Amino acid sequence: MTVAPLELPEPSQAVLRAARALQRRSERAEAGKFLVEGRQAVREALRLDGVVESLFLRWDAAHGNIDLIDAATEAGVICYGLSEQNLATITDTVTPQGVVAVAKAIDVPLKQVLRKRKKKADKPKKKHRRKDVSLVVICAQVRDPGNAGTVIRCADAFGADAVILSSDSVDLYNPKTVRASVGSIFHLPVVVGADLPEAIAACRAAGMQIFATDGAAGTDLTDLDEALAAPTAWVMGNESWGLPVEHLALADQTVAVPIYGQAESLNLATAAAVCLYASASAQRASN
Amino acid sequence: MTVAPLELPEPSQAVLRAARALQRRSERAEAGKFLVEGRQAVREALRLDGVVESLFLRWDAAHGNIDLIDAATEAGVICYGLSEQNLATITDTVTPQGVVAVAKAIDVPLKQVLRKRKKKADKPKKKHRRKDVSLVVICAQVRDPGNAGTVIRCADAFGADAVILSSDSVDLYNPKTVRASVGSIFHLPVVVGADLPEAIAACRAAGMQIFATDGAAGTDLTDLDEALAAPTAWVMGNESWGLPVEHLALADQTVAVPIYGQAESLNLATAAAVCLYASASAQRASN
Repeated sequence: MTVAPLELPEPSQAVLRAARALQRRSERAEAGKFLVEGRQAVREALRLDGVVESLFLRWDAAHGNIDLIDAATEAGVICYGLSEQNLATITDTVTPQGVVAVAKAIDVPLKQVLRKRKKKADKPKKKHRRKDVSLVVICAQVRDPGNAGTVIRCADAFGADAVILSSDSVDLYNPKTVRASVGSIFHLPVVVGADLPEAIAACRAAGMQIFATDGAAGTDLTDLDEALAAPTAWVMGNESWGLPVEHLALADQTVAVPIYGQAESLNLATAAAVCLYASASAQRASN
Repeated sequence: MTVAPLELPEPSQAVLRAARALQRRSERAEAGKFLVEGRQAVREALRLDGVVESLFLRWDAAHGNIDLIDAATEAGVICYGLSEQNLATITDTVTPQGVVAVAKAIDVPLKQVLRKRKKKADKPKKKHRRKDVSLVVICAQVRDPGNAGTVIRCADAFGADAVILSSDSVDLYNPKTVRASVGSIFHLPVVVGADLPEAIAACRAAGMQIFATDGAAGTDLTDLDEALAAPTAWVMGNESWGLPVEHLALADQTVAVPIYGQAESLNLATAAAVCLYASASAQRASN
């Protein structure tokens, strides 16, 4: 364990300015980069080849993050040391852990995620069955960054193969989305800017049934029985208005998460968690 | 429908000051009152007898809330009209809907919730079986107000009979908790400041098995099968450190929500949602 004083270079004003600019969606889109805050998320990002571009550590946090510095150095990632004041200019978090990375965008094209898997599905082998695309979440017009991040975390937890965000959703690289995903955006492919009908068609072509959540649906999650075990893409609507009729019509089945009490609805991320848990558990039980 | 100009009295400085003081936990505890923001939450509060004490409406929001004013007036609740500037002094929300109420504390003592139900359980009648206490959530040291509110919303949605917050949890009346519950704190009994071992003992005495969530448990939610259908109190730990060993030891069974992907854990509210959904659905399927 290194205990000698760390000699990290200070970032130049230009480097700080470029990092700070990534707080704005337009700058992130133009640069194809985003900010990753906190130990856990940075550690997950460093596990992927060539994703982290630079690492910023508050002086007093450097010694507590030797593991990250070692991993970054080994990967050829430059590590900067800086004051709390300078760090505060590049992060919007009130109590950061003193660790921020600049990473390259990690979203993948829709065709790439589904084409790959489809090829595998063409030559089914029982022992590889789990590797086919069997569970996908499509978020239509998700607007709250915390919800988007939490849905990605749930999708990761329940072993989904991909998350697809429609074209009018919140930015995947919004710091709040990245934070709420707690590193999960580095664990599974995420597609952004997808055209919803196109994404649904691609999932169907890849062998998945399309379930769309709708509080008013006549079928609820507990009615689905064995159908839950089949490969499924779940379409989740906007936080306030759900899915419009024309999008519901694209699904094979509309499904309500059952409400047994007086609550009018569930939070989007909660509904997604319950649907994904139900699908993933049914799929595993049938294998 | 009333369309004539509304003649609501303006609140005095003393009234505004008393409402504003409720932003602080100590003042809420002393006054036994709290703030309720937004149309939906206020509407739910007004459905309960004697809970809402006064209603504050931004002048331009008054006409859009005639239904609330009517309900409040009928219940003898005083309605004030005020400027956006004055309203902003009593709410911490950036974009309030122009409706805030002062309500009386609605938490109930542990003994009251469980004793009542226990009596009913002594003379079981099949058609009233659903009214026994069969599903309770105990939150130990929940610290994030948004999580606490979302757990209450989930508990309501999945028909739980009560939510119990341990003594070192976030304040039930924190405006963020109230907001995240989206009116659900008015739908089911909530106990606050409970001693955890006492709460667990009371739930057990009321005929419930005690399941404690623990990511490291050898049993996962999908292993529980028929056991899920029995009356259950779920104990959920703190967001960061979960449940300490001495509290896990108080449970009949420790249970992990299965993680099939690379995520290290689930968000507290997500885990609660999945456990409650699983219990509630199993209980209903067995009835």
